[in-house]
Amino acid sequence: MNEFALIKRYFQDAQTASQVVLGIGDDCALLDIPGHHHLAVSVDSLVEGVHFPKTYAPEKIATRAFAVALSDLAAMGAKPLGFTLSLTLPEALVSDAWLAPFASGLLQVAAQYRCPLIGGDTTRGPLTVGVQVLGAVEQGRALTRSGAEAGDQVFVTGPLGDGAAALAVLMGELTLPAEQSAYLERRFSQPQARIAAGRALLGIASSAIDISDGLLADLGHICDASGVGARLELSGIPYSRGLQSYVRPQQLLQWALSGGDDYQLCFTLPPEQRPALDRLCANGQLEAHCIGEMVLHSGIDCRLNGAVYQPEATGYSHFD
Amino acid sequence: MNEFALIKRYFQDAQTASQVVLGIGDDCALLDIPGHHHLAVSVDSLVEGVHFPKTYAPEKIATRAFAVALSDLAAMGAKPLGFTLSLTLPEALVSDAWLAPFASGLLQVAAQYRCPLIGGDTTRGPLTVGVQVLGAVEQGRALTRSGAEAGDQVFVTGPLGDGAAALAVLMGELTLPAEQSAYLERRFSQPQARIAAGRALLGIASSAIDISDGLLADLGHICDASGVGARLELSGIPYSRGLQSYVRPQQLLQWALSGGDDYQLCFTLPPEQRPALDRLCANGQLEAHCIGEMVLHSGIDCRLNGAVYQPEATGYSHFD
Repeated sequence: MNEFALIKRYFQDAQTASQVVLGIGDDCALLDIPGHHHLAVSVDSLVEGVHFPKTYAPEKIATRAFAVALSDLAAMGAKPLGFTLSLTLPEALVSDAWLAPFASGLLQVAAQYRCPLIGGDTTRGPLTVGVQVLGAVEQGRALTRSGAEAGDQVFVTGPLGDGAAALAVLMGELTLPAEQSAYLERRFSQPQARIAAGRALLGIASSAIDISDGLLADLGHICDASGVGARLELSGIPYSRGLQSYVRPQQLLQWALSGGDDYQLCFTLPPEQRPALDRLCANGQLEAHCIGEMVLHSGIDCRLNGAVYQPEATGYSHFD
Repeated sequence: MNEFALIKRYFQDAQTASQVVLGIGDDCALLDIPGHHHLAVSVDSLVEGVHFPKTYAPEKIATRAFAVALSDLAAMGAKPLGFTLSLTLPEALVSDAWLAPFASGLLQVAAQYRCPLIGGDTTRGPLTVGVQVLGAVEQGRALTRSGAEAGDQVFVTGPLGDGAAALAVLMGELTLPAEQSAYLERRFSQPQARIAAGRALLGIASSAIDISDGLLADLGHICDASGVGARLELSGIPYSRGLQSYVRPQQLLQWALSGGDDYQLCFTLPPEQRPALDRLCANGQLEAHCIGEMVLHSGIDCRLNGAVYQPEATGYSHFD
């Protein structure tokens, strides 16, 4: 594999953008960071057999890897500036048949988010896709995990459980009608990074995180970082319409709490910001579902229709 | 492996710095980019058996991976702001015995360069160390590959061939006295990223690149990007003192031209900047050796003591 030839052939034509002073092809890329902004940086690596199934379609691997990384920018309220790609490829995949759809899937989803590819490197080895995202957020306004206070309300930006349901379909553990399967497959292969929601929540939410590991684990990070706890009313959790007809409620709830891969935002809101949030929702700028509130004592206390609810622990699913 | 526990345990105590608004532990790190600067970004992944030998010492893997990535900032004239780490680990290495020296080696070399660890992720798999470096360079002043013009002189910042010689020692193809072996081993495990040299050359050099693939390949990138060629007088290439006593000149020259892994800068200088460069060298701010000049016709024309010289092609050495 000639690294230079590879990168040139498939990624040289990446869209660019006004903030990219110098893109692919020099020792570093150069980015123009807008004034009065901080740079937001995150990195995520997806490994075959762990984060996506073996022989998964290259364009789906690309869109999933990109969206998973971009979701971290959404959770900070940052707007995307660009990304770099670290691609580890086994020899068998160094081919037009694999690289062409991979690059095209990647550049297409990146263009949707106006987040250009600005650099990267390739190495030989088991298939791993590393995406480093760079974004900008107004100084002092980033949505961190540590700003929640007791009395804040807890929200999620959309249906939970789709990620785990999609995983069950992919692993042959759940059979659904074609339309529903296709919907879930799209939610898995091309999750929507909630960039617009994160941007809308700047100055309104007190903390935010993206739901990658399941609601309880991720809200738990907010609790730990903020030094507070949460009390949830689980009947408030939204599910996608189709899923509710085919999966029993207990399973849905389990997936929402511990399944992960949903990439919705979970955020906390000081009560005085409720009118501002309601306006955003009424204008269609945001979807938000209240699922509880932050409390002084630590831990996450779950209720289902008012009764104490003890969630089951679940393991993490790998594809090998 | 619990990813969160791992990262916390070994990397949470990373030094920080005033430009780090938010470090490890949130969805993104936040960096303060100085005004009137561009952000410089580069990413490099080092794979066991390819970029370093199997069972190589963890602290050496760490320092090498960091320096190789940082060298790209040096080649742009950027000052380091921070870096992220993508660590892929086989199960056998998820241990104190491996992680403690790896983390300590990494954080120590990062502290030397005042380049704090600001984030990262870990995955399970064959040992791969990905380092993404972030730096800042004054707007419009970065040392790109594309600024060289015919008539510019060509320089390198220090001895070439050490990287390839170290590789030969590591692979058992070359035996040297202990002192000389130890020197080369350090040059391999902890290359010096020429950050200070790159900073000193801002506004003086017309182009720059770091020598990772060998002088001919890397100067070739400057030629391609600048649309010019080069004529070299190979007798001007500097070598480390010890090496010259033990290796025949023909082999040394071959290593310098095609061996790579030297991480010196190769740069071009407009003739009118020669006095400025000489002042830097006289002040001890920079080491610079003139090895030729840029010319209008494309390609790199090599002379040795005035006679036409045809370099041999060499392959790339892997450790497996």
